[in-house]
Amino acid sequence: MVVMPRRSDSKTRMIAAARRLYRERGYVATAFSDVLEESAAPRGSVYFHFPGGKQELGTEVALLHASDTIAQINRSALRFTTAAEMVGDFIDQAKDRVLASDFREGCPVAAIIVETASSPGPLSDTTRRGLQDVLTVFAARMTEKGLPAEEAESLAVATIAAMEGALVVARGLRDVAPFDVLRETLTGRARDSL
Amino acid sequence: MVVMPRRSDSKTRMIAAARRLYRERGYVATAFSDVLEESAAPRGSVYFHFPGGKQELGTEVALLHASDTIAQINRSALRFTTAAEMVGDFIDQAKDRVLASDFREGCPVAAIIVETASSPGPLSDTTRRGLQDVLTVFAARMTEKGLPAEEAESLAVATIAAMEGALVVARGLRDVAPFDVLRETLTGRARDSL
Repeated sequence: MVVMPRRSDSKTRMIAAARRLYRERGYVATAFSDVLEESAAPRGSVYFHFPGGKQELGTEVALLHASDTIAQINRSALRFTTAAEMVGDFIDQAKDRVLASDFREGCPVAAIIVETASSPGPLSDTTRRGLQDVLTVFAARMTEKGLPAEEAESLAVATIAAMEGALVVARGLRDVAPFDVLRETLTGRARDSL
Repeated sequence: MVVMPRRSDSKTRMIAAARRLYRERGYVATAFSDVLEESAAPRGSVYFHFPGGKQELGTEVALLHASDTIAQINRSALRFTTAAEMVGDFIDQAKDRVLASDFREGCPVAAIIVETASSPGPLSDTTRRGLQDVLTVFAARMTEKGLPAEEAESLAVATIAAMEGALVVARGLRDVAPFDVLRETLTGRARDSL
């Protein structure tokens, strides 16, 4: 007999499944049918949980990804004592994930941006706010580690952009070299800024 | 009376139109119908010029974009005397383009990578070789400007990845700050490497 999962479970599972699929093939190519298959959610879940359709699912993925990234940065701030270590850890975590997936998985929000940045709407508003929140938190934690506020803001933007670019180029090359050289450059900048 | 363009013209125009559409909405969302409309090429052109279909068009865009990027780097090497100036110019050209398009246009090859890196085939082989060729040429020109070969290679990878990441984050934020901070960091590294 098939046990139907509770709706709340199925919504959560669908968002997680969509995020994983965006990492691999992007937002546009991820159909609800793929998300249902990957999450084993009942077909009826789609318009019950996401009456706004594909864009609403994309918005939920962007919200989830921003929250997880903020939590990751705060965990890193607890583990490490310097801004340089936080910058290195942020880049290492992206490098580890791309290696673990054999270069199959990128950033789900980068995919949304690359595919939808030119069409303004709730989805691009959500990705923009998510990025702004991540940058604010990253800069605040690095300021607490002793970086001047303005330098912490610059370093946060540089680190997020370096991670996104290293991810794209590493997946293109199937080589993590971009992570290593940008890690070295930005941790050096963080040390010099103290 | 309608003058039909020569086939060679229509193929070239279709590749250029596809490249522009990839910049705006990515590879997956760019249908042949959009490319025909944008390039005013005759409908019959599609399977005449691209018997391999969408993936063959994507491959032609990746080949064109790599060649143009190599020419851009070589032009920059003629114009500037230092590796630091070449790094700055490479980042400035991407920044100028994203501003000129009001953040609508990104990198067509980054879109292909984000959407297809997880499916091996001629398209990912072509983007990988294109990236490798761009990196080889960029590193060679910077070595000629006096950078040690190994540092020129590292700086080339760092600059390409920084440009790609700045493009994604700038489009997400609708703010060119990522270009400015990564430009400052990498031109500084180039100066220190002499």
